[in-house]
Amino acid sequence: MKLANLTGQRFKERPADCVVDSHALMLRGGFMKYVGNGIYSEFPALRRITSKIENIIRKEMNAIDGQEVLFPVVLPASLWEESGRYKSVGNELVRFKDRNGSNHVLGMTHEEAAVQLVREYAQSYTKYPFMIYQVQRKFRDEARPRAGMIRVREFTMKDAYSFHTSQEDLDKYYELCFQAYNRIFQKAGVPQVITVKSDSGMMGGSVSHEYMLLTPAGEDSIVICDECGYRSNMEAAENKVINNEGIEEELKCVETPGCKTIQDVCAFLKSDVLSSCKAVVYQKNSDDKFVVAFVRGDYEVNETKLKNIVGEEIHTAVITADDCLNAGYIGPYNFPEEAQFYLDISLKGIKSLVAGANKEGYHYTGLNLERDLENVNYVDISKVKEGGICPCCGRQSITIKRGIEVGNIFQLGTKYTKTMDMRYTDENGKTNYPVMGCYGIGIGRLAASICEECHDEYGPVWPITIAPWEVHICCLRADDEETKKTADGLYNSLLNDGIEVIYDDRKTRPGEMFSDADLIGVPIRVIVSPRNLKESCVEITTRDKSIKEMVPVEKAAGYIKDLRLKLFAEIESHVEAYKQETM
Amino acid sequence: MKLANLTGQRFKERPADCVVDSHALMLRGGFMKYVGNGIYSEFPALRRITSKIENIIRKEMNAIDGQEVLFPVVLPASLWEESGRYKSVGNELVRFKDRNGSNHVLGMTHEEAAVQLVREYAQSYTKYPFMIYQVQRKFRDEARPRAGMIRVREFTMKDAYSFHTSQEDLDKYYELCFQAYNRIFQKAGVPQVITVKSDSGMMGGSVSHEYMLLTPAGEDSIVICDECGYRSNMEAAENKVINNEGIEEELKCVETPGCKTIQDVCAFLKSDVLSSCKAVVYQKNSDDKFVVAFVRGDYEVNETKLKNIVGEEIHTAVITADDCLNAGYIGPYNFPEEAQFYLDISLKGIKSLVAGANKEGYHYTGLNLERDLENVNYVDISKVKEGGICPCCGRQSITIKRGIEVGNIFQLGTKYTKTMDMRYTDENGKTNYPVMGCYGIGIGRLAASICEECHDEYGPVWPITIAPWEVHICCLRADDEETKKTADGLYNSLLNDGIEVIYDDRKTRPGEMFSDADLIGVPIRVIVSPRNLKESCVEITTRDKSIKEMVPVEKAAGYIKDLRLKLFAEIESHVEAYKQETM
Repeated sequence: MKLANLTGQRFKERPADCVVDSHALMLRGGFMKYVGNGIYSEFPALRRITSKIENIIRKEMNAIDGQEVLFPVVLPASLWEESGRYKSVGNELVRFKDRNGSNHVLGMTHEEAAVQLVREYAQSYTKYPFMIYQVQRKFRDEARPRAGMIRVREFTMKDAYSFHTSQEDLDKYYELCFQAYNRIFQKAGVPQVITVKSDSGMMGGSVSHEYMLLTPAGEDSIVICDECGYRSNMEAAENKVINNEGIEEELKCVETPGCKTIQDVCAFLKSDVLSSCKAVVYQKNSDDKFVVAFVRGDYEVNETKLKNIVGEEIHTAVITADDCLNAGYIGPYNFPEEAQFYLDISLKGIKSLVAGANKEGYHYTGLNLERDLENVNYVDISKVKEGGICPCCGRQSITIKRGIEVGNIFQLGTKYTKTMDMRYTDENGKTNYPVMGCYGIGIGRLAASICEECHDEYGPVWPITIAPWEVHICCLRADDEETKKTADGLYNSLLNDGIEVIYDDRKTRPGEMFSDADLIGVPIRVIVSPRNLKESCVEITTRDKSIKEMVPVEKAAGYIKDLRLKLFAEIESHVEAYKQETM
Repeated sequence: MKLANLTGQRFKERPADCVVDSHALMLRGGFMKYVGNGIYSEFPALRRITSKIENIIRKEMNAIDGQEVLFPVVLPASLWEESGRYKSVGNELVRFKDRNGSNHVLGMTHEEAAVQLVREYAQSYTKYPFMIYQVQRKFRDEARPRAGMIRVREFTMKDAYSFHTSQEDLDKYYELCFQAYNRIFQKAGVPQVITVKSDSGMMGGSVSHEYMLLTPAGEDSIVICDECGYRSNMEAAENKVINNEGIEEELKCVETPGCKTIQDVCAFLKSDVLSSCKAVVYQKNSDDKFVVAFVRGDYEVNETKLKNIVGEEIHTAVITADDCLNAGYIGPYNFPEEAQFYLDISLKGIKSLVAGANKEGYHYTGLNLERDLENVNYVDISKVKEGGICPCCGRQSITIKRGIEVGNIFQLGTKYTKTMDMRYTDENGKTNYPVMGCYGIGIGRLAASICEECHDEYGPVWPITIAPWEVHICCLRADDEETKKTADGLYNSLLNDGIEVIYDDRKTRPGEMFSDADLIGVPIRVIVSPRNLKESCVEITTRDKSIKEMVPVEKAAGYIKDLRLKLFAEIESHVEAYKQETM
């Protein structure tokens, strides 16, 4: 199409509220428009990208026997009551009443709808296994939408659900899907995406993986071992700590006036932070009861792991003077009976600890947990640290990086089939609950992540498989007859060959044409100008600046077609390379 | 794919609550599943159909320079406040608060979102005209969802919005879109779809057309003149009445005890219903003030036309003893000042009418409106009748049919650009409001309408352009080696040629196979059986029963490919025939 007709305005200034580059570039390039908090419209250039991503995904889902279906956006609350999530999910779930006063929700994930669709169909073991998926809009009322399309409230998602008669069968399919996801990211031009172990969160289930694009703009922390390849989301990463045990000492209660932080206490007592015990206080959402997490002074609490151990939602505590806890002086010895505490594995083995005395202005020294407390039990509730010990290979080789989650796969087990009473009859006439897996990819987030990974200061550098167009022709002097004729001819010739071309024949300055082309980010650029035509050539470049050639006019179409195939082949080669690697 | 793996169960019994055949067949064929009132999930067979319809539509929209975009499902209320529709639209618009208490709506149409998307982009006349469209889910909280996918609450819609700098330019584009819509319905296999003039309803604007599939299952009444081709939705149809004027008489108030209906009065006074004046009473939604519509005794009130004349929403009145109106005795003479009335054109010219006297138990006879009332003004607020006068050619040739609205196109004028302050600068530096058109097609409703039009008692007869698969192979004895081998071979050969095949190789009774094939409704069927193979043949039939051939095995693939092309060509010929007709 002609650029002059393309809906969506481009502009120079980086909007002030953009914290990541993809957000700024996708606004500046006329890809999307802000409609409301975490809600965007897609201009045609982005819609072309998201359509291509959707179709790459569809192809891979169909290749692993996925069957495309469509669930509603609006779901009766009764469906979510069956699974228990109508109550258990917080206010990221939009609930509303229809004109008749019936409760409804906006689907933010569709496990319930998937079970509802197939529970009559799949009553015999002969129907298994099967996988259904959809590409559909979803709404999640995020507290803090951010970074443009990376964390929004409304989004298009491919969500897939598989059903199996055994855990082994799920394992097998999970592996197939794991590979299909790798192919999707490779085909979308981001072979850099890595898989990490993840926390299953509100989905339930046990095994789960996230697909992460590592970038400083990401909001997830990824724990990576460069030695053995271990990778995990911080939320799910196991912490491993080997303590210097030290020398056992006598338990003493000492005055520590005004020492409310670990730093204060260590400075005052001239003790090592590595033998101090830090308290972090939470409250249960259900009844506001206090839950104290004790970790070694230099560690932070991993709230996801703590929440999983507590078994319910918690929030940061607010402690008042009337409460049983003495803020700043909380320790595991003489701990108040009304509250509950957990000891992190980072405290294990330390023979002599400094810890709060649960009394204003006092700490214990020489605390030996296993000697001084009854039934000591350590749990893993601390965050892994840069330079820490790998839980997999045991080497001190942990690095921590930032990443954007671009996909996830979960083994759900029977959580939904049991609560929603979906059963099948097996070979022996016995009824059983099927085992489920679920598999998601956010389309818009993936587009934005690719932009985040593939851009320079002038704009996105879209991989050809998802680029809005494949070729961008700039006719530098549309008022010059020969130039216009050559550019028109090339445009029509490429269109006839089924190549996707955006054609800029506006009567505008070359500088504006080039900056617009950079902002649109099409991989192959052709410049037709009177100067080039003097040498009977056009200039062909790639958006990533790796190629810049003067090509004779009569050979231009052929050159472009070859270049286009080469760019596709490069992406295909990632997929092939990966195949060989894992086989 | 193999039918054994197809998600979705088929069954024999017509569900009791299905009032139309398409609803029953689409449930029985495993196409869709009820989720909630007016809310359905699509099984894979239907999703394949809706995808094909979406792509037929996309192709035609792109061919008239449409640019695909995507608007959100959830919209901030502020956007609908700009246009005034946040207040003016009734409770079919879902309104809800997000976690921060901000008001939002679920998009049921996207004029506001379209204007919001482009109002910064299109500030200069050089950007015009342009058309943007989306394929997106919508939610409309219908009071009475009915007939399966024909009237639902949640649906996928293609909605398009065009922007112009003049009415003439809109007219030109409107005509283009009008033709594109005709092509869409022809390509989807329902060339029977006709266009009718329609009421613009809550969309605003003036000229509008609906695309109607005539079927007794439809919920719209269509007024058709077989003589001149005039067609209109009943809601918008102009009524034309020529009265026998009769003889002027003296105005008399006569006792008509207990005569509360036109029939009672005419019987009692021995007068003709054609010279009686019937009152139908409404109230304004805003303040409950009475609005009385007077029509000739044998006519019905067209509430849409009345509402347009009143200029606001009205509802059927509830009259109590305290009110100014005497139910059963309401007439235009001595009409109470507190209420308001309208005289229909069906009363025009009658020299002597019987009408209520606005007094319990009394009527007037000899009422001559133009003689007895001041400032008599007739308006068109009555429904056209079968056998009535065509407003276009004047002949007494009106027939009335039922139809399903499968698409609509509207000229919106400047309603949205003015209220939302979208402006552009013209050639002379003057600012103006652009003129808009909008164009919608409901995808699921079209699928159901096609099923309604194309089915027999055994199931749908899908046109090949939208059928879930093109070929259905039944292997009648999968346990017979040669039969299975032949069927497998044919299946793989067709798949290799890119033909869409559903393959039934289940070990099941032939009767079940055939009834399943009928319910799925694939246009070409191939039966591979030991009996046919004895003659080295397979049986090839079409779902519409027009073809039934024994074809030698080695020629089967070729025959099927030719037949497939022939079926596509038949549909294409409708498009071609139509082109010639209108040119």
